[in-house]
Amino acid sequence: MPSFMPPERLLLGPGPSNVSSRILQALARPTIGHLDPQFVGMMDELKALLRYAFITENPLTVPVSAPGSAGMETCFVNLIEAGDTVIVCQNGVFGGRMKENVLRIGATPVMVQDDFGKAIDLNKVAEAFKANPGVKALAFVHAETSTGVESDAQALCQLAHEHGALAIVDAVTSLGGIPLRVDAWGVDAIYSGSQKCLSAPPGLSPVSFGERAVAALKARKTPVQSWFLDLSLVMAYWQGEGARSYHHTAPINMLYGLHESLVMLQEEGLEAAWARHRRNHERLHDGLQRMGLELLVDERHRLPQLNTVCIPEGVEDLAVRRQLLDQHSIEIGAGLGSLASKIWRIGLMGASSHPDSVDRVLAALSQVLKRPL
Amino acid sequence: MPSFMPPERLLLGPGPSNVSSRILQALARPTIGHLDPQFVGMMDELKALLRYAFITENPLTVPVSAPGSAGMETCFVNLIEAGDTVIVCQNGVFGGRMKENVLRIGATPVMVQDDFGKAIDLNKVAEAFKANPGVKALAFVHAETSTGVESDAQALCQLAHEHGALAIVDAVTSLGGIPLRVDAWGVDAIYSGSQKCLSAPPGLSPVSFGERAVAALKARKTPVQSWFLDLSLVMAYWQGEGARSYHHTAPINMLYGLHESLVMLQEEGLEAAWARHRRNHERLHDGLQRMGLELLVDERHRLPQLNTVCIPEGVEDLAVRRQLLDQHSIEIGAGLGSLASKIWRIGLMGASSHPDSVDRVLAALSQVLKRPL
Repeated sequence: MPSFMPPERLLLGPGPSNVSSRILQALARPTIGHLDPQFVGMMDELKALLRYAFITENPLTVPVSAPGSAGMETCFVNLIEAGDTVIVCQNGVFGGRMKENVLRIGATPVMVQDDFGKAIDLNKVAEAFKANPGVKALAFVHAETSTGVESDAQALCQLAHEHGALAIVDAVTSLGGIPLRVDAWGVDAIYSGSQKCLSAPPGLSPVSFGERAVAALKARKTPVQSWFLDLSLVMAYWQGEGARSYHHTAPINMLYGLHESLVMLQEEGLEAAWARHRRNHERLHDGLQRMGLELLVDERHRLPQLNTVCIPEGVEDLAVRRQLLDQHSIEIGAGLGSLASKIWRIGLMGASSHPDSVDRVLAALSQVLKRPL
Repeated sequence: MPSFMPPERLLLGPGPSNVSSRILQALARPTIGHLDPQFVGMMDELKALLRYAFITENPLTVPVSAPGSAGMETCFVNLIEAGDTVIVCQNGVFGGRMKENVLRIGATPVMVQDDFGKAIDLNKVAEAFKANPGVKALAFVHAETSTGVESDAQALCQLAHEHGALAIVDAVTSLGGIPLRVDAWGVDAIYSGSQKCLSAPPGLSPVSFGERAVAALKARKTPVQSWFLDLSLVMAYWQGEGARSYHHTAPINMLYGLHESLVMLQEEGLEAAWARHRRNHERLHDGLQRMGLELLVDERHRLPQLNTVCIPEGVEDLAVRRQLLDQHSIEIGAGLGSLASKIWRIGLMGASSHPDSVDRVLAALSQVLKRPL
């Protein structure tokens, strides 16, 4: 069997985003041992870089050795125990995944539903807290990858704290793309992914746990149901003084890639990265408007890094995406759940958030849809 | 913060082993989407290559998107339910980790203990089956990375089937290094790691489930406690006809690396790889004997890919390993658990199983220990 030679794609789907050659080169550096003193030094840098990206001083800020869904599961299995009640906001696909996580722990999810494409309604969340005293945590998605909606994470965290609950935040698509301030907003536990606005390859999930979350972890009555994701064990490897104790073998080369992506983020500056994502979104939006294409989401809740475009009547979803991929080597995303075949998702995340990417996808869409730009 | 530039190491510890430049180059190929038809084609090749390595026709043969410990957890959480009884053989550190997995499911582990450094005693296992009717599974480590011992996997699988139990096999260190025949031996569920004898970077865990295991999965009364590791969901991505349904974002570039490592294994041939591991072990053993160093394990149970060397009296473990690392850039492994500071672990796995590696570590040990070679 021959080696696999992937094509060059312009990745404008919901993730992975394009990975720069600088990060790809970092991946290809020689593998060293996961207990090598030089590797341990790199781990310390990586934690500092992640604290920069999350804007937090949380000591427990580490990359989970698996994709974003495992980061989500890390937050739930470490903080929630059987019998707990969790308010889960669902305004897209990933709220549903949170519910699955709560159920599989033997805890009770109280669902707060909003339509796909709408932001989370704070009033509904406040009502859910009033109707359910003693809620352990509020869980919500900051930037819904399935709909392109931003919810008010700061206000939601405040609401959680007013009711003595922990705030668990999905920042898979927000980290590095839009303002996110873990300490200032009082986020208790947060997870993200490497393959969105950080533009590293998929496979790692940065998480950060604040003081209240660490206290909850220490006060558990039962063991964490996952050995692999048990943060009390993971910490001994990532936070030990001097010699780290072995938990599992870290994904060495993937961590080189994440480190490099965060070095690049620091070089650019977090606020500059947010501004770049905003600018390229506006460039895209202008072009879409010229072609008569509408965005699904109200202006004030739109994610600049994930644009959900309404598919015009009479246009066949799959045929367009196929043509973009086959003729232009551009990947855009399909709608999920109730939005399947109703929207396209155009991601402008990380290295993919670039004026050239915007111009290429606009030109290709104009050609495929036969709409002048 | 500057980019991280790892040193060049000769990796002769318990894993990761050295990753060839061909595999490192594969890692650095352009990232594409996890639903891209070209990527889906690569996934099919990867499954075929894994079936070759495991010597199995099992359709459910896929890499779990996380390191070996997550592969272990995948086997346990999918096959075992609360209330089940599992016989767990422990003759090293990894049997203890299996016990933890069983406990966290709410199942009962029946431990069969053998000394660290000894093979699993079949008689004790047979007695455990007699004393515990209705056991759901027998779990054991084929090649104990913590002690350098091979156990008789074929006989253990047979014993499990005689008692109507499933055989769950840890092949983290055995796959690609010593004979392992999943179908011929009747293994029901097996997991391995990418970073041992396959010589890919750490971060992926190939698993294979046979017919009986798939039947057990389908007959579950309760949901799998991990959403991320639920094989019924993972399968829809890896085995769907035509369009695959999205479960989690696959670690694209890591999968390029695993694919390349398996292409290389197929080029060399599985039996040739086993013979190479055997030859280099003998070369190492000859040299160790000339220096008056003894192996811990009886000849008939020795793993060629993981050599446990007794530390001579008066020699300080850590000082020697430090000197090897700092002066010779060679990593060897420490003892774990009851063998800490009593043994060194010299891995000759994958690309690290090479006559030059053997000669380098022997020369370095001779110099550091001041023993003529």
